[in-house]
Amino acid sequence: MKRAEIISVGTELLMGQVANTDAQYISSKLPEAGIYVYSHTVIDDDAGRVREAVVHAYERADIIILTGGLGPTQDDLTKKAVADLFEVGMKRDADTVAKIEKYFRKIGKEMAPGNLSQADFPEHSIILGNSCGTAPGCVMLFKNYAPKVMAPAKADKMIAMLPGPPRELQTMFDNELLPMIKAMSKSVFKSRYYTICGVPESEVERRLLDKIEGSTNPNVATYVGKGYVTVRVSCSGEKEDEVKKTLRNFDSLMKKRFGEDLVSTRGESVQQNFLRRMKERELSFSCAESCTGGLVAELVTSVPGASSVLRAGIVTYSNLAKIELLGVASETIGAFGAVSAETAADMAKGVALKCGTDVSVAVTGNAGPGVMEGKEQGLVYIAAWYRGEIEVGEFRFGGGRENVRMRAAVTALDMARRLVLRKSPEKKPAK
Amino acid sequence: MKRAEIISVGTELLMGQVANTDAQYISSKLPEAGIYVYSHTVIDDDAGRVREAVVHAYERADIIILTGGLGPTQDDLTKKAVADLFEVGMKRDADTVAKIEKYFRKIGKEMAPGNLSQADFPEHSIILGNSCGTAPGCVMLFKNYAPKVMAPAKADKMIAMLPGPPRELQTMFDNELLPMIKAMSKSVFKSRYYTICGVPESEVERRLLDKIEGSTNPNVATYVGKGYVTVRVSCSGEKEDEVKKTLRNFDSLMKKRFGEDLVSTRGESVQQNFLRRMKERELSFSCAESCTGGLVAELVTSVPGASSVLRAGIVTYSNLAKIELLGVASETIGAFGAVSAETAADMAKGVALKCGTDVSVAVTGNAGPGVMEGKEQGLVYIAAWYRGEIEVGEFRFGGGRENVRMRAAVTALDMARRLVLRKSPEKKPAK
Repeated sequence: MKRAEIISVGTELLMGQVANTDAQYISSKLPEAGIYVYSHTVIDDDAGRVREAVVHAYERADIIILTGGLGPTQDDLTKKAVADLFEVGMKRDADTVAKIEKYFRKIGKEMAPGNLSQADFPEHSIILGNSCGTAPGCVMLFKNYAPKVMAPAKADKMIAMLPGPPRELQTMFDNELLPMIKAMSKSVFKSRYYTICGVPESEVERRLLDKIEGSTNPNVATYVGKGYVTVRVSCSGEKEDEVKKTLRNFDSLMKKRFGEDLVSTRGESVQQNFLRRMKERELSFSCAESCTGGLVAELVTSVPGASSVLRAGIVTYSNLAKIELLGVASETIGAFGAVSAETAADMAKGVALKCGTDVSVAVTGNAGPGVMEGKEQGLVYIAAWYRGEIEVGEFRFGGGRENVRMRAAVTALDMARRLVLRKSPEKKPAK
Repeated sequence: MKRAEIISVGTELLMGQVANTDAQYISSKLPEAGIYVYSHTVIDDDAGRVREAVVHAYERADIIILTGGLGPTQDDLTKKAVADLFEVGMKRDADTVAKIEKYFRKIGKEMAPGNLSQADFPEHSIILGNSCGTAPGCVMLFKNYAPKVMAPAKADKMIAMLPGPPRELQTMFDNELLPMIKAMSKSVFKSRYYTICGVPESEVERRLLDKIEGSTNPNVATYVGKGYVTVRVSCSGEKEDEVKKTLRNFDSLMKKRFGEDLVSTRGESVQQNFLRRMKERELSFSCAESCTGGLVAELVTSVPGASSVLRAGIVTYSNLAKIELLGVASETIGAFGAVSAETAADMAKGVALKCGTDVSVAVTGNAGPGVMEGKEQGLVYIAAWYRGEIEVGEFRFGGGRENVRMRAAVTALDMARRLVLRKSPEKKPAK
């Protein structure tokens, strides 16, 4: 099994301003390519330190991935440090120059001279496109210690340089680098991601313990996502057919063990799955939010194409806004409080009628910090509406404010998803 | 200035199941003790790897902090590996044994034999109490390469071993280890964070180039946050007064060079700053969103205490919702389109009147992917309302859908912040 080391360059990491989520992301993806991660290292924006770290890693690893230090500013120096180490020059790439110039014309701002350094790469590099920013990445492949442009399958070492901003890194890694790493590692690897909502991670793990413990092929791991749990199953083999069959069998096993809690067998997020099912049924959606403060609407609209489903979302933080904008009865709030099943139901009904939608959800609760009107932090009521029928759930979410909000928002969409599947099992509903 | 290295032990980090927030936490605290963090390293649960990493760090750093690997399970081996490396034995601590036994009696569970290994420490260790769990930490102090129990101020090297679970680590670090590190360090170190909105990172850097290049004290760096830029300035010295004076001078310099674009001299995010200024002026807020889909409301409500400012937010994804919920004139949409300055202005006015707020913002644009009604991706109109007066801005944001949405939402709050500061420079407005 090939070994990888991840070297992250950035003073902001050593100052503790951000956690090293880049190394985490890459590490979570490499097992599916059959690569074992040997270590992470974080170092300062300093050319000497970069060279030292790469020398050290080059002795031990087949694949070295550097993150950060590709931007236009002074402390971005990764590519030059690597070029110096292997005694190759830097070469300006005309295509990249054109792209950077086009980008600045588009945003109508003047380009600082430093921006063009993003178009400089060590000789013998393969450039990795950046669809989310201006800093491209690059890869150098080595055979017998010499850098050379060649097919990844022929190389015995690889050094990749990726940008630090997480979104740019993740997109570039998935679309450009991972396929090259897979080609370098030679056997067939496939992964599948299962989305589970409504079951805590420890319980997901318990139900899959026979598959997690002592089994390396398929290799199974669980991850806590944003408000839900993901199970990754990676399988490797000589032949594609065998690998596919193993994964198909795993689909059946997951359906048997998780039932309605299994949101997706293809790694969709809860919001993606919910939107797809709403579209298939031509149903319209609205939401009313108190403690989630816009997060339900934000999750839905973060999926491209949400406009055909979402009619409107209303964030009512004050009682007055709940009454005036959603038509919640002031008696309901008076008798049961703003954080109550009754208010949640009134909100869901109110927003659905106001916006004329088939489906709606409403969330009201105490995200914290502290106790509010006698309701403890984490207590949340969620109501889901489907053409006049309402279901309400009471939840207690642990963790801090951010976690409560995220869990509540995702759970709201999951409740709506379950309700829609129950009420409208066929894709096209009778209108 | 003394140097620290952080070595984190744990396969779960190398598998990408969690980010290394322990290293982040410690790194964010060490500067205040005048300690410079030289590197982070993450390695497997393996005694040989632990020894190798400590040897390497011992050459370069004064303080080595190991995190993880103190629990009772098989793969927890940090203390033993360090003891072996320095050729000292392990010693069972009677107080710790008593505490562990008491804990198991309290929770009514039987103790596994492995649990007692948590009471074993390398000889010459100082034990660090764990108020949140059963695994204590420990510190070894060195003088002339020999471990010895002594006052921290007399030591020239320190190796600390802390538990991996974040809550246990943070409490132990703050209460037990940090005071010892401060006693060992003899200089003062302070950092300040400046928030800048409306200026790209490369331009921020250009304006500070004289302070960034070749200057190590104060040390200046820029990085891109979510929709804005942060400048970090770190300064060290013998005396606290001198350090504070240097930073005060930097405040003036930043105000001179960035003017209204300087949102905060104390690291507040745009949304935190906006909310604080609204609260100081007792102003109320509402927002109307199209392409940001709830993100403006979400950013505002992610700050605790938003409820005293935000009355409501309305997400109107469809034209009908804009007309019905916000009172946008259908003629406006007909003549100029949904993505236009005119529609943005109608939305801001509509939501402010509907919710009866002093201030509002509205966002309409094309977040992409693709061209929409002839408007290119990234084109966004933002309107800000202050008691009947409206300002509208046209923006072109680069990057993908997520970036456009984040930039648009933060820019909207920044526009409102500027408008409020201009219209109501005093903290309490005439009502």
